[in-house]
Amino acid sequence: MHNIPQLQKIIENAVKETQYPNHPKELYQPIAYLMGLGGKRLRPALLLMATDLFAGDIKKAISPAMAIETFHNFTLMHDDIMDKAPLRRGQPTVHAKWSESVAILAGDVMFVEAFKLMIQVDAHILPKVLSVFNDTAVGVCEGQQIDMNFETASKVTIADYLEMIRLKTAVLLGGALKIGALIGNANIADADKLYDFGLNLGIAFQLQDDILDVYGDPEKFGKQVGGDIISNKKTFLLIKALELADAQTLSELNSYLENHTISPSEKVIAVTAIFNKLNIKTIAEAQMMKYAETSLKALNDIKVKEDRKLILKDFAERLIEREN
Amino acid sequence: MHNIPQLQKIIENAVKETQYPNHPKELYQPIAYLMGLGGKRLRPALLLMATDLFAGDIKKAISPAMAIETFHNFTLMHDDIMDKAPLRRGQPTVHAKWSESVAILAGDVMFVEAFKLMIQVDAHILPKVLSVFNDTAVGVCEGQQIDMNFETASKVTIADYLEMIRLKTAVLLGGALKIGALIGNANIADADKLYDFGLNLGIAFQLQDDILDVYGDPEKFGKQVGGDIISNKKTFLLIKALELADAQTLSELNSYLENHTISPSEKVIAVTAIFNKLNIKTIAEAQMMKYAETSLKALNDIKVKEDRKLILKDFAERLIEREN
Repeated sequence: MHNIPQLQKIIENAVKETQYPNHPKELYQPIAYLMGLGGKRLRPALLLMATDLFAGDIKKAISPAMAIETFHNFTLMHDDIMDKAPLRRGQPTVHAKWSESVAILAGDVMFVEAFKLMIQVDAHILPKVLSVFNDTAVGVCEGQQIDMNFETASKVTIADYLEMIRLKTAVLLGGALKIGALIGNANIADADKLYDFGLNLGIAFQLQDDILDVYGDPEKFGKQVGGDIISNKKTFLLIKALELADAQTLSELNSYLENHTISPSEKVIAVTAIFNKLNIKTIAEAQMMKYAETSLKALNDIKVKEDRKLILKDFAERLIEREN
Repeated sequence: MHNIPQLQKIIENAVKETQYPNHPKELYQPIAYLMGLGGKRLRPALLLMATDLFAGDIKKAISPAMAIETFHNFTLMHDDIMDKAPLRRGQPTVHAKWSESVAILAGDVMFVEAFKLMIQVDAHILPKVLSVFNDTAVGVCEGQQIDMNFETASKVTIADYLEMIRLKTAVLLGGALKIGALIGNANIADADKLYDFGLNLGIAFQLQDDILDVYGDPEKFGKQVGGDIISNKKTFLLIKALELADAQTLSELNSYLENHTISPSEKVIAVTAIFNKLNIKTIAEAQMMKYAETSLKALNDIKVKEDRKLILKDFAERLIEREN
């Protein structure tokens, strides 16, 4: 079996060794640029871990893992246009550095590149793998649309929110793991359990993201703490606070959301104080732990020796306990 | 065998019967809208004709044909954003009717829908079919990028132009035919010949488009005659004229291209007169006929009974002789 640094090394090497065509350069330079910006490579690492869990051939999992990473970066390239984001991993986004047209079209080609990598799996699992991949891709797009709808929605419930992050974030973790399991020749029952492990872990991961955005250690977080509060983002924390607040607290919270003259740092302090009063962090952590436990239970139920599961368990725990 | 109206009817029915999910509606309504705007359905019809040519099972070709039509409409949805086009088939484009973000994301989902339809082919031909489809998709994107580059390029040669239309337009006709041939269990040699038929027919088709834009009968053309001239579009006709013009004619032609005060109709009349003086229509028609002949030669070389080829021959001839 491989440990996580070994798997990450395999992916980093695969990224570095990827040669895109030279022409037309407006199409391929942005792809190489975005793929080269780094990131945690969580999703491809999970795919490799899944193949390894079932003692499959890791070599056969590298192209599909790269497919998942390429697909993930394609969604980032298009999401950044829609979100009008100037930066990605601290560097200019593709649409900011080149143009929106370039980011649309380079993203499209990137999606095809992902398919080209994915169809390299053995023919006998190809239909099943592509079915998982397609469902995953549809889910991610639906999640992004629902997330955009939240910006103008007057009311978003916790159930709406959990469904959105399930689609936008979690199905890709589940899909990557299930594809890795299929490459490792897992039976469908075990592959589905590993999907559930990833799906629930993905929801826990996003809830942790929401918590870190407010309660992260500024020295370790790597992004501006309170960014979600500043932009009125409908996270689990804000939705829960709006749900639990009494009339006076609700009016106070809404006044901060609607106040365009308050300084960002004052707004972060004030809204965080309301979250604290309502005990939102504890509630969010409890919700996150519920998903983490469901996730680990699914892993437990998989019929492989317990010692083979240690790396995925360790990975899941580190994802939940991370500080950035 | 089926005649062309029968095949078109099969496709129209398949388009009408397609049910997209209801939620999120911003994602699926634009897809149903664009697919419902009509069009000639050339590409899926070609796929069905190819399966029929080899006496294959047309029923098995319907989903892949819909995949090709869905992919084609996906490229239109994204191209229209890049081209800032307000209208498509006389109706508002998706980005104009909804928003750019919707058009980006609905296009992405449409691309996944195309893959979902395409993987419905029999498992034994799936790897080959997807390889053709992926290569086709990459080609179309590269063609669009090269076409966009032309807008700001100081010099575009006839060779550059032919390469661009090969990618942007012709590979999709070739790809649709080759996939149809594979579904009809054609051998690879014949499938490749049918690809060549489509590729050369596609180039001839685009050259005919360029000719019609200037020389079409306004009553039959359906679009504004001279639109390419008004927008200084680097078509075969303009590139050839710039290449053949003597110094004085060149200077005159350039003065029209750079003149922003002349009325559109005066510009069309003046540039068309220069094209006439240089005999551009005849040259373009000769070039188009060259590709049409290469196309028909490839069809001739395919090892099936001649009477089975009549529909494709007829289709090719009608495409070349069309007036809109």
